[in-house]
Amino acid sequence: MADKKACLISIVGTGRVAWNLGRALTAKGYAIQEVSGRNSENIRLLAAKLNARPVDKPSKLNPLCDLFILAVNDDAIEDVSAKLPENKGVVVHTSGMKPISSLKGKFAHAGVFYPLQTFSFDRQANFENIPILLQAGNRDNLLFLENIAGSLSRNLVHTNDTQRQSIHLAAVFVNNFTNALYGIADDILKDKELSIKILYPLILETANKILDHSPFEAQTGPARRKDIGTIETHLKLLADSEEKSNIYKLFTDYILNKYHPENNG
Amino acid sequence: MADKKACLISIVGTGRVAWNLGRALTAKGYAIQEVSGRNSENIRLLAAKLNARPVDKPSKLNPLCDLFILAVNDDAIEDVSAKLPENKGVVVHTSGMKPISSLKGKFAHAGVFYPLQTFSFDRQANFENIPILLQAGNRDNLLFLENIAGSLSRNLVHTNDTQRQSIHLAAVFVNNFTNALYGIADDILKDKELSIKILYPLILETANKILDHSPFEAQTGPARRKDIGTIETHLKLLADSEEKSNIYKLFTDYILNKYHPENNG
Repeated sequence: MADKKACLISIVGTGRVAWNLGRALTAKGYAIQEVSGRNSENIRLLAAKLNARPVDKPSKLNPLCDLFILAVNDDAIEDVSAKLPENKGVVVHTSGMKPISSLKGKFAHAGVFYPLQTFSFDRQANFENIPILLQAGNRDNLLFLENIAGSLSRNLVHTNDTQRQSIHLAAVFVNNFTNALYGIADDILKDKELSIKILYPLILETANKILDHSPFEAQTGPARRKDIGTIETHLKLLADSEEKSNIYKLFTDYILNKYHPENNG
Repeated sequence: MADKKACLISIVGTGRVAWNLGRALTAKGYAIQEVSGRNSENIRLLAAKLNARPVDKPSKLNPLCDLFILAVNDDAIEDVSAKLPENKGVVVHTSGMKPISSLKGKFAHAGVFYPLQTFSFDRQANFENIPILLQAGNRDNLLFLENIAGSLSRNLVHTNDTQRQSIHLAAVFVNNFTNALYGIADDILKDKELSIKILYPLILETANKILDHSPFEAQTGPARRKDIGTIETHLKLLADSEEKSNIYKLFTDYILNKYHPENNG
C-alpha cells in the first residue's frame, strides 16, 4: 500500500487517542474516510477536524475500508468490533491491555496498534519518538501496519499480548502514579499557600536524569541515605493525612529495603 | 558586594551540591577561596576543580571569608558549623529540612541557601531556572545572599523554616518517589527482557504535561476511569511481588477516592 491516499482508514472513537492519532495520520497525508463512535456531536467534531464523513454507528461504516482503528475504551472493544460491517480490511484496537483476541466480528484480519503515550485533547502529540506497539495475525498485515505506523514514528515495536500488558503496567507506574505524586506534592504546597510551580525544574530534571542513569543510580533522598531524622520530620508534617503518610512510608520502606537490605527481617 | 572577586567564599563539603554549586559560582566569576570537608582526597579533587585551596579541616578555614557554604549532610550541619573559626562572614547551609538555628558557632550571621534540585556528579546543573530558597537573620545578609544567588538563578524565593520543609517534603514526592516508580517499572520490564527505554517518551511527556495542566486534570489511567477489569489484570501480573502490589493498590485507591468519591465509606 505505497499510496497513502489509496488507503482507506476509518476511526471509531472520539477520545484522546482518536484525536491525536487521527490528526497525526492526516498530517502525514493519510485520508481518514470516516469517523464513528458513541456520541454524535463528538463524531461530528472529530470528523470535521479530519475532513472525514461522520457516521453515527460503527455498523454503518464503509465495509471497503482497508483499516478500521478502534480507539475506544478497553471495555468497548469486543462490543464495537462485533458491530463492524463484514469487511476484508484490518481491524486494530489501540489498547495496552486487551489481547488481540478481544476483536470479534465478521472480518479476517485483526491487529493491535498501541501508541505508548499519554494524550491530551489540547496538545497534539508529536509521534516521531512515540513507541507504537504492533501486533497482527500474519506477516502481510504486520507489514501493512508497519507501513502506516512507520510514517508516524521511528519507534516501532513488535510485541505479543503478554509483553504489551507488562509494558502497559510499567506505563501506569511511570505515568499515572507519578502524576498522583505530583498531585500529592501540589496538595502539600497548597496547604502552605505555595505553588507547585516551584517544583517544575525538579520534575523536569527527575525525568531527564533517567535518560542517562538507571533508576538505581539516580535515586537520592532521605531513604536512600537512611536519614532517619528527616524521615521522622516528614512523617510529622504528614500527620494529618493517613493516605499521604501511608504512601510516604511504603516508598520509604521500599527504598530502604533496596539500598539498606541489612535492615531486613 | 558588587565586586565578585572581592567576595571570599569557602565551601565545606565535597558531595553533589558542593560540586554543582562550586562550579556554577566559578563559572559566574566568583573565586572560591577554600574547600574543606571530611575526606582529604575529595577535598583535593574539588579544590583543584575550583582553583581553590584545599583545607583539611573546617576549623582551619580562613576566618576572613565573607561566605561559608556548608554543603554537608543534614546531620553534620550542627557539628561542622560549630567547628568553623570565629568569623564575621555569613554562614549558610544548603539543606531543605534543617532550621536556620541548626547553624551554631562563633559567628554572627547565619543563613540558608537551598537550591531546589536533584544534583549529579556527572551532569553540571544549569542553575538559571533552579529555585534558590534563601533565608537570613537580617536584611543586609539577605541582600548579600540574593546578590550571589541572583547571579546564578532568576528564581529566588524567600522562605522560612516551615515553608522550606514543606517544599522539601513535596520535592521528595516528585523526585525520590517518582524515581522509585521508575525503578519498579524497570523491574517489571526486565522480568520480560524489555528495556525501560521504551518508556522514555512517556516519562518525558508526563513531566512536561504538568507544566500546563494541574495534576488533577492531567490524571489518566485505569483508576482514573474506574476500569476495574484492567486493575484486576494488573494485580494478577504483580502477584509475585507483595511490595509492588501494595504500591499499586495504594495509588489505585488514592486515585479512585479522588475521582470516584461516591465509593467511599
